[in-house]
Amino acid sequence: GGGRAPLAPTPYNYDRRLGELGGGTQASQRLLAYSDALFSIIATVMILPVAHTKIHSDEKLGESVQQLLATKIAVYLMTFLIVTVAWAAHVRLFQVVELIDDVLALANLACMMSITFLPYTFSLMASFPNQPFGLFMFSSCTVIIGVIQVMIVLYGFRHSYLLNHQIQESENKAFYKYHILKIILRGPTLSFLAAIFSFFFFPLSYMFLGLIVIFPLLSHLTKWFRSRILGQEEELPVDYFTSYLKEPLSKERVETFSDGVYAIVATLLILDICEDNVPDNNVVKEKYSGHLAEALREFGSSFLAYFGSFVTIGLLWFVHHSLFLQVTKATRLMTLLNTLSLAFIGGLPLAYQLTSEFAEKSYNEIEAIQISCVTIFFASIFQFSIWIAALFHEVETLHPFARYGGKEHAFMFAKLSLYPCVSLAVFCLTCVMSELSTTIFHLTQIIIPFAFLVLRIFVRIGLMMLNYIMSLARSKSNVLEEEEAACLSPADVLS
Amino acid sequence: GGGRAPLAPTPYNYDRRLGELGGGTQASQRLLAYSDALFSIIATVMILPVAHTKIHSDEKLGESVQQLLATKIAVYLMTFLIVTVAWAAHVRLFQVVELIDDVLALANLACMMSITFLPYTFSLMASFPNQPFGLFMFSSCTVIIGVIQVMIVLYGFRHSYLLNHQIQESENKAFYKYHILKIILRGPTLSFLAAIFSFFFFPLSYMFLGLIVIFPLLSHLTKWFRSRILGQEEELPVDYFTSYLKEPLSKERVETFSDGVYAIVATLLILDICEDNVPDNNVVKEKYSGHLAEALREFGSSFLAYFGSFVTIGLLWFVHHSLFLQVTKATRLMTLLNTLSLAFIGGLPLAYQLTSEFAEKSYNEIEAIQISCVTIFFASIFQFSIWIAALFHEVETLHPFARYGGKEHAFMFAKLSLYPCVSLAVFCLTCVMSELSTTIFHLTQIIIPFAFLVLRIFVRIGLMMLNYIMSLARSKSNVLEEEEAACLSPADVLS
Repeated sequence: GGGRAPLAPTPYNYDRRLGELGGGTQASQRLLAYSDALFSIIATVMILPVAHTKIHSDEKLGESVQQLLATKIAVYLMTFLIVTVAWAAHVRLFQVVELIDDVLALANLACMMSITFLPYTFSLMASFPNQPFGLFMFSSCTVIIGVIQVMIVLYGFRHSYLLNHQIQESENKAFYKYHILKIILRGPTLSFLAAIFSFFFFPLSYMFLGLIVIFPLLSHLTKWFRSRILGQEEELPVDYFTSYLKEPLSKERVETFSDGVYAIVATLLILDICEDNVPDNNVVKEKYSGHLAEALREFGSSFLAYFGSFVTIGLLWFVHHSLFLQVTKATRLMTLLNTLSLAFIGGLPLAYQLTSEFAEKSYNEIEAIQISCVTIFFASIFQFSIWIAALFHEVETLHPFARYGGKEHAFMFAKLSLYPCVSLAVFCLTCVMSELSTTIFHLTQIIIPFAFLVLRIFVRIGLMMLNYIMSLARSKSNVLEEEEAACLSPADVLS
Repeated sequence: GGGRAPLAPTPYNYDRRLGELGGGTQASQRLLAYSDALFSIIATVMILPVAHTKIHSDEKLGESVQQLLATKIAVYLMTFLIVTVAWAAHVRLFQVVELIDDVLALANLACMMSITFLPYTFSLMASFPNQPFGLFMFSSCTVIIGVIQVMIVLYGFRHSYLLNHQIQESENKAFYKYHILKIILRGPTLSFLAAIFSFFFFPLSYMFLGLIVIFPLLSHLTKWFRSRILGQEEELPVDYFTSYLKEPLSKERVETFSDGVYAIVATLLILDICEDNVPDNNVVKEKYSGHLAEALREFGSSFLAYFGSFVTIGLLWFVHHSLFLQVTKATRLMTLLNTLSLAFIGGLPLAYQLTSEFAEKSYNEIEAIQISCVTIFFASIFQFSIWIAALFHEVETLHPFARYGGKEHAFMFAKLSLYPCVSLAVFCLTCVMSELSTTIFHLTQIIIPFAFLVLRIFVRIGLMMLNYIMSLARSKSNVLEEEEAACLSPADVLS
């Protein structure tokens, strides 16, 4: 636990502060965990209309997928990214306002309720792209969210015992107040502009929406550019807490948010298997003369698809979990890569739906497998790149075990590269072979956990062999040196 | 933090132990939180088929609800209770096996995957009550779960550094091993018996299923009966850890499980509003001549229903959160009451569906409101009874602030009794008035947060008035005493 940020309040002080403040003031952990769960649900929920789009078996998947891509997937991705931005602002806000009371808890719930409405406004925007009404609703939602969050900040600074104690003791409270207000009001302002421009010129308003997603990244890049290239430093009050503002999002909340996404994806699968795969009583009586087991055989392929997809999600969570156990601090870049990985994780219900629907040697079987592979590949390659990004600053971001040369390094590398390799290999197979059944695909998915179990052994054998080869090479070079020495020595003698 | 159980390992020791053990061994918090999320999803998911049952507006709700009650609600409740029992066994298991490694993490995921299948087997059992196949699948599921959990225990006791360190140091390891195996194998054994009897005599096998749910309660009652009435004590090894076995479930995991249920109920609402309430493009063009805002007015009542239901769930979570902030330890009875409360919380999507469907003065409007009131009433009255149960052992279960006479006591009381009172009042109103629109009902739901905000003021005024009356009464009695004294004194003088 030596890698924790030294600025975080220690539990002991925390409890003592609460004890002094009395029962009305509360620690915020559980509220934040619940908010994170809701945020991840709201971010992922729009994959459902995508997954539930009915595609007829006789239709060619390629074209209908193109139509999907045009609207529903765009809605899903846009929702995911915008909700993630709102989540990041929420994290920042509650890094400043550390304790809550009943008023703040209720205000936060009101804020969450407004956020739940965002996916709906996006569906409206996608279904009626030529009407300004969807955009108008979206921007009024964000304005309401902004107003509530501003109220939370003002309330927090009025009752300053609720604030982070380093801000409390700071002389530059006003600076922090405006800094956090700036972060919070960025989104609402941009969407307000978007709503205004929607009456004049549409493309510009969509550009503003895009800007909401890119803005944090953009401002970070310009800052980096200024400090690295031009050598200018931002003017911040010289204060102990200043470094806190530059700190990335807290690792705990990144974990809870990610867990939420993985759990909601698992939920969507469970919902699907429970609702759609119970045979009708009359059908069983007439068609299978009452034999339930035979009737269920019809659903065999979708059970297999369910198990395959569930195993994949479980293992991707497992890899994420293993990775974040070794991470001590999540930088901005790592958080961004994590968000991208999660966006593809959210796409897995679509992959499940496609592979379970086009199981029986239909026209689109290969396409369904390919889409699944692509989704899994991107989800896992972004996980892998979190690891790469962490390795660049390994001293501050990773536990010693996982750093280069640590005893877990090679194993972590193998764990993270398993899914990208397998999904890429299967994708290549589908290109070469014209027939690859979904059954084989799902069986591959189910076998992979065993690969994880034997991975440690493989890595150990691999390392041993590497050591052996290295030592062989070294001993050979030693022999050569000795030979050289042997060759030289007579000469020495001769000379 | 003085109220924490003294047996829990302190974070410092924990980290040090992990440091000594190396990277393969991991803290289990995040795995357990993820498992809790999945457990709560699996427990709540079967409300969806209930909520999605189509009821025609011209049909009388009373009869169709009876049919619902007969099968789908029974499936939901049975799933909820059995999954909760499985969750409790899981909590017990990971109180003994405290640290995990990759093998255990994967085994746990396999276990979770088998548990996700339980709701499906229940649907089969409910749809085909006369065929033994559903029961057979259910019991094979539980047997698989049991086998995996036994493997986890055996693995844990083989690699004893993974165990709770008090068990590690104990001389009676074998006792703990058999104790935890007994808890784990209870469910699978009973369901195995149920599967066997399903071939001979059905009612007996359903009785066995019921026994799975009641067994923990039953064994606890008999133990209590034996110790209190007959004075017999169980023979346990005299050991420091013994008290740990009698300890209730950890409060943290009860909280995570509850949060999961509240979050999944919110999800089901969000899913519903996002999928069903986007108007069709062609309909808008033809019917409303392209005016989106007018087309949306049609959905007005379901937006209102959504906001009303979301506010209700949010506030019930808020009450739960406030209550558990004051709770230091959750006893068995409190956990049981919490489970019952959550079972009714899970019923809220049904209430939402009914009130949003029968909005427009249809035949069943009153019935829909009544069902909502009953659901909310039971959810909140069980929350209230958690508080009552806690007050019986207030010294060990509650923070000093919330105990009788503490400064938060009256306010907590008011918070917890708000929802039972309001829902009961609305229910009575529906009985008296023949017409009460869902609009008014939802507006009531939306107003309640403000009631919470002013509650503190009301409680303060109430307490002040109480004090005033008490002091008046006291001063009156003082006056009387003085008068008596005054009456007496002349007599004294006279005597």
